[in-house]
Amino acid sequence: MPSQGQALLVESVRKLLRRNAERNLIKILRRAHPADIAAVLRQLEDRDVLRLFQLVPDIEERGEILAEADPGIALSILESLADEDIVEIIEGMNGDDAADILELLPEQRASAIIGALEDEDATYVDTLLGYAPDSAGGIMSPDVFALPRRTTVREAIETLQASHEELEMAFYLYVVNEHGHLVGVCSLRQLVVSAPDATLDEIMETDVTSVTTDTDQEVVAKLVARYNYLAIPVTDDANRLVGIVTVDDVIDVIKEEATEDMLMMAGAGGDIDNAQSAFASARLRMPWLLASFFGGLGSMVIIRVFEATLLQVAALAAFIPITLGMGGNVGTQAATLVTRGIALGKVNTEQFVAVIGREVATGALLGAIYGVVLALVASLVYADAAAVTSWHAWQLAATVSLGVAACMVIAAFVGGAFPLLFERLGIDPAIAAGPFVTTSVDILGITIYFMIGSLLLL
Amino acid sequence: MPSQGQALLVESVRKLLRRNAERNLIKILRRAHPADIAAVLRQLEDRDVLRLFQLVPDIEERGEILAEADPGIALSILESLADEDIVEIIEGMNGDDAADILELLPEQRASAIIGALEDEDATYVDTLLGYAPDSAGGIMSPDVFALPRRTTVREAIETLQASHEELEMAFYLYVVNEHGHLVGVCSLRQLVVSAPDATLDEIMETDVTSVTTDTDQEVVAKLVARYNYLAIPVTDDANRLVGIVTVDDVIDVIKEEATEDMLMMAGAGGDIDNAQSAFASARLRMPWLLASFFGGLGSMVIIRVFEATLLQVAALAAFIPITLGMGGNVGTQAATLVTRGIALGKVNTEQFVAVIGREVATGALLGAIYGVVLALVASLVYADAAAVTSWHAWQLAATVSLGVAACMVIAAFVGGAFPLLFERLGIDPAIAAGPFVTTSVDILGITIYFMIGSLLLL
Repeated sequence: MPSQGQALLVESVRKLLRRNAERNLIKILRRAHPADIAAVLRQLEDRDVLRLFQLVPDIEERGEILAEADPGIALSILESLADEDIVEIIEGMNGDDAADILELLPEQRASAIIGALEDEDATYVDTLLGYAPDSAGGIMSPDVFALPRRTTVREAIETLQASHEELEMAFYLYVVNEHGHLVGVCSLRQLVVSAPDATLDEIMETDVTSVTTDTDQEVVAKLVARYNYLAIPVTDDANRLVGIVTVDDVIDVIKEEATEDMLMMAGAGGDIDNAQSAFASARLRMPWLLASFFGGLGSMVIIRVFEATLLQVAALAAFIPITLGMGGNVGTQAATLVTRGIALGKVNTEQFVAVIGREVATGALLGAIYGVVLALVASLVYADAAAVTSWHAWQLAATVSLGVAACMVIAAFVGGAFPLLFERLGIDPAIAAGPFVTTSVDILGITIYFMIGSLLLL
Repeated sequence: MPSQGQALLVESVRKLLRRNAERNLIKILRRAHPADIAAVLRQLEDRDVLRLFQLVPDIEERGEILAEADPGIALSILESLADEDIVEIIEGMNGDDAADILELLPEQRASAIIGALEDEDATYVDTLLGYAPDSAGGIMSPDVFALPRRTTVREAIETLQASHEELEMAFYLYVVNEHGHLVGVCSLRQLVVSAPDATLDEIMETDVTSVTTDTDQEVVAKLVARYNYLAIPVTDDANRLVGIVTVDDVIDVIKEEATEDMLMMAGAGGDIDNAQSAFASARLRMPWLLASFFGGLGSMVIIRVFEATLLQVAALAAFIPITLGMGGNVGTQAATLVTRGIALGKVNTEQFVAVIGREVATGALLGAIYGVVLALVASLVYADAAAVTSWHAWQLAATVSLGVAACMVIAAFVGGAFPLLFERLGIDPAIAAGPFVTTSVDILGITIYFMIGSLLLL
């Protein structure tokens, strides 16, 4: 219900909250999808968030809303609930969602709640909490539809009929041997179209792609996206089937990784979101500004070196922003193209020479065009150059046009090379694509610009 | 098979191509997944791309490889094939993939090929080509598993058994009335667990979310992601069921939209990719540099206005890069946070005051911290200020620290406000988050910086 429908829902909920129209609110809460309620919570005041959540009639729906809500909102709800309430909600949730919720809480409170869970749930959640949050183990669901290899199709269908809705998105049936090892997979469709007396190992596909609990979530996402899977099975280090990652979780991973890359490229770190306070946001963003800060100090030192030149031709200062701005833009273009190419698997470090060659050629073409235009503009604006500097207009025009062109070529090189180098060194290339590129371009650009200026002064 | 496995595959293919070991290559082509072959093509020379493609033994697999390949590579393969070969490949493809392939070709050649297709295929493809590529019609598959409402469960299962593999990812069975209107949906699981004599309208879910052929692909992706659907049905303007968009297509849309946003934010336009020539890339990127160019000219004009100040205190020029660099970084942080928040539905234009308030407060905190540090650095570096300027060191320190802090606050405001304003005006906020922010920050930052300098000069 994106956009329009959502806006209407928010408006109705707000109006009913103001009027204390609890019965109507409960009606809406019954009808609306938990994901829509979670989206509504984002737009309410803290106090109203709690009021609305307390009205949700169904305990399972409460769990689903918590699972879909932004982490900050979920946490504020949890903080206002008693431990018994959380226990009750968690017992109605899927294992993986329950683990995510418990991860939000301080360790002590989470332990207390796990201690109060029924044994089976506690074991589930405890195991899941043992996996890194960005690993296959951390995002998998432990509720997997798996049967022994000798099961017949008839028995399998009976099991499916007897099973509750618990099995999250059961569209594959996994087949295991006597050790619990994954040996094959059937689609529900194969099950439906096969003879009832056939055993699973007669109809199953034995070539199953699986991951282990410690596989990085980004690798899981790439596998699912590349092969169009709906789910991928997860095995532990003894090769036992322990869970599945479903395609809806993969979509969340893909969005999360894209967001993280964008924030890295913006020089903001990957961990901030829109719900943090200004203070928390400043604390997280501060260290990422260090690159710009030291880079800026570097530029200062270089300009100081060329102070004599600058005193003779003050007009040179006027072209610092355009030189660095154009260079920064070309550098960011190149860095973003290469970084995204790496993330999508379209560029790899083997292609270093080809990629850099193309970026530098592009930078040179753009630099030539904008350099010529800038020369014309500078000649016009500083036609009376002799009045303000000891230079002729052509000298200034030549310096600024060569300066901007050189800066754009350097920027294209730096923007293309940094992400590839970082990737080869095993560092996230998105970090390289941010302020490291613009800052390096600033320093190198300033240097070459003033060197050209000094040469033409002689 | 990301990373390691893929690198091995590329290496083997290259070695075998060098040795002309065709039989071994065919063996590899038979075993490997079309998506992996498509990824291998990316890393081969043009000549080898064609050689390898010609060796693919199975005509259907040729189609799948073309569908998975990057558009540039698919086009170069198509250009080397005769029309008859393309017709044969297309007749073995899914309707939506076939349409995507034909869209790559020049119109005349595409028409010739459609003319040579079997009637049924030609109608399919023709209809699909009529939809905008970024609409639900443009990404849907017309092969949808739909049956009349009076069908029994037994008949439905028999139909499923009789159907070929053609039905792309049939995990939902859609139910239509006598006019072909969508009236309900069953999961395969419901089918399996229901009594054989029940009719579909007894077991179906009637609350079906659907989209129309002209729904924007981004809206489709949001619906599928929000409600964890595996597929969403598409109806035409007469409310007839005409296709489905499956979750694997949605994953492609989500990646595509994220890439487009990143490139927009980098001021590179949304349409470039890593496969274009330097010339094509420069042509596409050139107009996006205009914002930086005119912004840079604006900064030049402003610095010219303050030329008298600059001649008195040449040291002011040395702090231009750090002022604009820090401002640009804070502005990009804010703009990226807000733009991504809008894309993910976490921020909307209603929250203008709250969002801007938080960003400005963050900018002020960061500006205060870095301003103080910069004042200290400037006092140290220019302790002998009197030697190079007519100022005392404290005047310079005060100017640069106030300048950088003011610039960071302005940048936080501009970075937060632009994307929200663009969104309200119906323009993609990612465009605002790019050079428009940094350029505005440059101009406003320069102005306030020199104003502070001039005031302290008096």
